[in-house]
Amino acid sequence: MISVIIIGAGNVATHLYKAFTKSENVSVNQWYNRSLKSLQTFKNEVDITDDLNNLKDADIYILAVSDDAVASVSSQLPLENKIVVHTSGSVNVHDLDKKHKRGVFYPLQTFSKTAQLDFANVPICIETLDKPDYHILKELAISIGSPVKKVNSDQRKVLHLAAVFVNNFTNQLYRIGHEITESEGAEFDLLKPLILETAKKVQDLSPYMAQTGPAKRNDKKTINKHLKLLQSEEHKAIYNVLTESIKKTHGR
Amino acid sequence: MISVIIIGAGNVATHLYKAFTKSENVSVNQWYNRSLKSLQTFKNEVDITDDLNNLKDADIYILAVSDDAVASVSSQLPLENKIVVHTSGSVNVHDLDKKHKRGVFYPLQTFSKTAQLDFANVPICIETLDKPDYHILKELAISIGSPVKKVNSDQRKVLHLAAVFVNNFTNQLYRIGHEITESEGAEFDLLKPLILETAKKVQDLSPYMAQTGPAKRNDKKTINKHLKLLQSEEHKAIYNVLTESIKKTHGR
Ligand SMILES: NC(=O)c1ccc[n+]([C@@H]2O[C@H](COP(=O)([O-])OP(=O)(O)OC[C@H]3O[C@@H](n4cnc5c(N)ncnc54)[C@H](OP(=O)(O)O)[C@@H]3O)[C@@H](O)[C@H]2O)c1
Ligand SMILES: NC(=O)c1ccc[n+]([C@@H]2O[C@H](COP(=O)([O-])OP(=O)(O)OC[C@H]3O[C@@H](n4cnc5c(N)ncnc54)[C@H](OP(=O)(O)O)[C@@H]3O)[C@@H](O)[C@H]2O)c1
Repeated sequence: MISVIIIGAGNVATHLYKAFTKSENVSVNQWYNRSLKSLQTFKNEVDITDDLNNLKDADIYILAVSDDAVASVSSQLPLENKIVVHTSGSVNVHDLDKKHKRGVFYPLQTFSKTAQLDFANVPICIETLDKPDYHILKELAISIGSPVKKVNSDQRKVLHLAAVFVNNFTNQLYRIGHEITESEGAEFDLLKPLILETAKKVQDLSPYMAQTGPAKRNDKKTINKHLKLLQSEEHKAIYNVLTESIKKTHGR
Repeated sequence: MISVIIIGAGNVATHLYKAFTKSENVSVNQWYNRSLKSLQTFKNEVDITDDLNNLKDADIYILAVSDDAVASVSSQLPLENKIVVHTSGSVNVHDLDKKHKRGVFYPLQTFSKTAQLDFANVPICIETLDKPDYHILKELAISIGSPVKKVNSDQRKVLHLAAVFVNNFTNQLYRIGHEITESEGAEFDLLKPLILETAKKVQDLSPYMAQTGPAKRNDKKTINKHLKLLQSEEHKAIYNVLTESIKKTHGR
């Protein structure tokens, strides 16, 4: 049995809490947040607190707070020589106070409070300063059904950056698709199966192999038609920069 | 029973053939291609030909040939007053020879010969010059389980353009994710669940609502860290143009 205390009550903290309570191998000894408001729903299931000085004992303390708060909250913890991890893709492991056995437990996924999420689809990227701590964090991840990967700071930063491309930027392309179709009274809904299929394709095929379309073929006629159709200079700029990128990747 | 003749033997033609033969409501009377090579596998199931002058009778002739070949092949067809449709998102319906009852049967999806595809996930966008022809094409689409949408030329062109954004450009962002992670010895595989979840999210939520990340928050610290990490000027340009686009969309 691994005992944990969760610090923070946002998206990540809430999803982790739910996954931990479902697992037979994990007990959540306490849940802290600076304000009790978001914890009230859970007060009959778990010990909740808004006072760091009341913190109980546990094997692992998980700091799932905003990136900017990691350093200060970690230094306020009245603990010594305990495993304390943050959950951020971009915060340095050394930002945690050095009185702790420091580590990172970074769930590489997009969380929002409403959406259900199976942790089988949440790879956990683990980093520890002390080797032995890796094993208990790995066991914790496995207990909630997650794939686990040992990832150093440089790799984690680059994964976080890549996540911005495949998640935030991709989502903005969906948004532009939405804007373009609506402007002509066409339905964005018609694009949804294509969006899903595009994501499914690269589960087995490399993005390089999966590429198709006018940019890859360097089909100038279609490219020019598209540029004429686009009304906004911003959309044109995005069209151009991504078309050039595809052409370069495919040697055009 | 709707009878069809397929012209062309590429990705779209092959997927349509398989879907038609599975449907109890459709018979494929013949399959034409300019060379018989790609049709040989099917010669025991269906009448195949490479001679347009041998073309049989059918309710609908489907021209699933390269965009550039639609006009010329359609004028070579020794038919008159028959329903002839092409399957392209970007070719004008008037590019079909005017001796035909002209239409478009545009499957809004990404096809490749290897990948299996359920036509329930392939919306068919139908356009006809003569109103009565719409109904039989709609019935044909329904026979293979596809959602159907009446779409005029302007809407179809804009859907095709939007498809480039959500399919080709999105796939290039996956490619960049692949390049960035590999450059640091991190694994692209770790991003695959995130890619899928990003696509799933907008099935129910608008892309506007689904957006998260540093650009939306205008988190300058993280944005600058990312720009420093990016080695290639091309990746930086893409990062900048999409970050600006997200900021503009979300009023930053
Ligand atoms: N969301 C994702 O998709 C995702 C994915 C992977 C990793 N992460 C990482 O996980 C961590 C948490 O993210 P999240 O999305 O769960 O954030 P969130 O939903 O915004 O929640 C932030 C939490 O931090 C607390 N907090 C903020 N500033 C604080 C301070 N100065 N002192 C004490 N507590 C403070 C908040 O308390 P209040 O409730 O009182 O405001 C809240 O409980 C971040 O490091 C993030 O980078 C997020
Ligand atoms: N692929 C997709 O994801 C997709 C999606 C929606 C719509 N479409 C549209 O569907 C149509 C077909 O696309 P596809 O991907 O199936 O193409 P494809 O796989 O490249 O196949 C093209 C077919 O057209 C034939 N062809 C090419 N030039 C010809 C000519 N001058 N005369 C006679 N036949 C000719 C080829 O014959 P050979 O076999 O002899 O070369 C081949 O059978 C296009 O209009 C395309 O825009 C494609």
